[in-house]
Amino acid sequence: MRTRFQQGLDQLRTRLLRMGGMAEQAIDRACQAYIDRDLNRCHMVLEGESKINEAEREIDLLAFDLLAMQQPTAVDLRFILAVTKINSDLERVGDQAVNIAERVMDMVELPKADLPVDIGRMAAAVAAMVRRALESFIEGKAELAQAVLEMDNVVDRMRDDAFITLVKTMNERPHITRQALDALLVARNLERVADHATNIAEDVIFWVRGADVRHNAQQENPPQEISPRATGA
Amino acid sequence: MRTRFQQGLDQLRTRLLRMGGMAEQAIDRACQAYIDRDLNRCHMVLEGESKINEAEREIDLLAFDLLAMQQPTAVDLRFILAVTKINSDLERVGDQAVNIAERVMDMVELPKADLPVDIGRMAAAVAAMVRRALESFIEGKAELAQAVLEMDNVVDRMRDDAFITLVKTMNERPHITRQALDALLVARNLERVADHATNIAEDVIFWVRGADVRHNAQQENPPQEISPRATGA
Repeated sequence: MRTRFQQGLDQLRTRLLRMGGMAEQAIDRACQAYIDRDLNRCHMVLEGESKINEAEREIDLLAFDLLAMQQPTAVDLRFILAVTKINSDLERVGDQAVNIAERVMDMVELPKADLPVDIGRMAAAVAAMVRRALESFIEGKAELAQAVLEMDNVVDRMRDDAFITLVKTMNERPHITRQALDALLVARNLERVADHATNIAEDVIFWVRGADVRHNAQQENPPQEISPRATGA
Repeated sequence: MRTRFQQGLDQLRTRLLRMGGMAEQAIDRACQAYIDRDLNRCHMVLEGESKINEAEREIDLLAFDLLAMQQPTAVDLRFILAVTKINSDLERVGDQAVNIAERVMDMVELPKADLPVDIGRMAAAVAAMVRRALESFIEGKAELAQAVLEMDNVVDRMRDDAFITLVKTMNERPHITRQALDALLVARNLERVADHATNIAEDVIFWVRGADVRHNAQQENPPQEISPRATGA
């Protein structure tokens, strides 16, 4: 039989995954809006933001309650703290989706321009990072999380390439500077989403490695003492 | 006499303030580097990043230890959670300083251009927000934190103005597109710093309002039950 505390932990996990689904959907919609120049999807992203913000607050409150309820064990404590951090990263993924939607809304007002940047490809890479980061959380596997960290370099390179080619476009075809700038900012927003996926993966590693340590009775991260730090402070 | 737990809380506060000082310094240096086209300061910012990252990890570990040590009271729990959130925001302020320094390094390679944007003024507004947010944390005053939230609109407007004038510059003087783009991205980085200051202020309010609630025995945020949520989940 599961205790009330364990039920709370399950619920925290379920809510965080639902929040993850909302953040993924927001990014997918914003990128699809870019590709199709679709104002409808932009509005859906803007309207979805308040739901994501509300979900963030609810998860934080639930985490707070669980911490207040009783002294969690080391692994539960790490889990709850990881959830609060992943929670803010997901909320910020939602913010980036809003930023992208705003750029698309700017772009749709301007004549369509053929730009030398494949935002769809970059969006697919970033979406895969977010999905894998959430999978590593569901499965509690540090190896999956590690793979996310390695994907970040690929996205950084895509962003750098986009920067170079789009600045060139601005120089050579100044009449479409604004469109090129919108695309460049979308590329930067996507790169920031990738950074959040990286943060999530790091939080999963923090949680899981702690759990491994505990189960193997071998400490990779020895617990810190208060007193030596007090003298060093 | 202060208990070991209370000493730990004091230490957490001291360390977070030191971290805040490092983040403030990084932003000041990066903005001064922009104004003086000073590569030396850029390098100082890049070198300082690993210290900020290290400070973040240490604060997280200390917070973890304090949570693990004993069941903190509601107000201490809120304080510790607020510290972990402020901690990640400060680390991200450090990241923005690095982004600005990188843009300055790009800019210094290019011919100097006279740009219609006052980055110094924007930097001063953003620095004031970070300083006030940290003051609201030191003093534990929600009113001070509230003032930070109101300053955010001013910075957002500055960023929007910078966007409009710099896009115009790119159109009219395409030979300095790259310099204008660097300035535009610096303006966006500063606006992101302002967002982090806003997050910090919100975390202070979360902590302090909880404290007020506790001291006045009047609940603005009633504690959430686990069971009703379980049925709603």
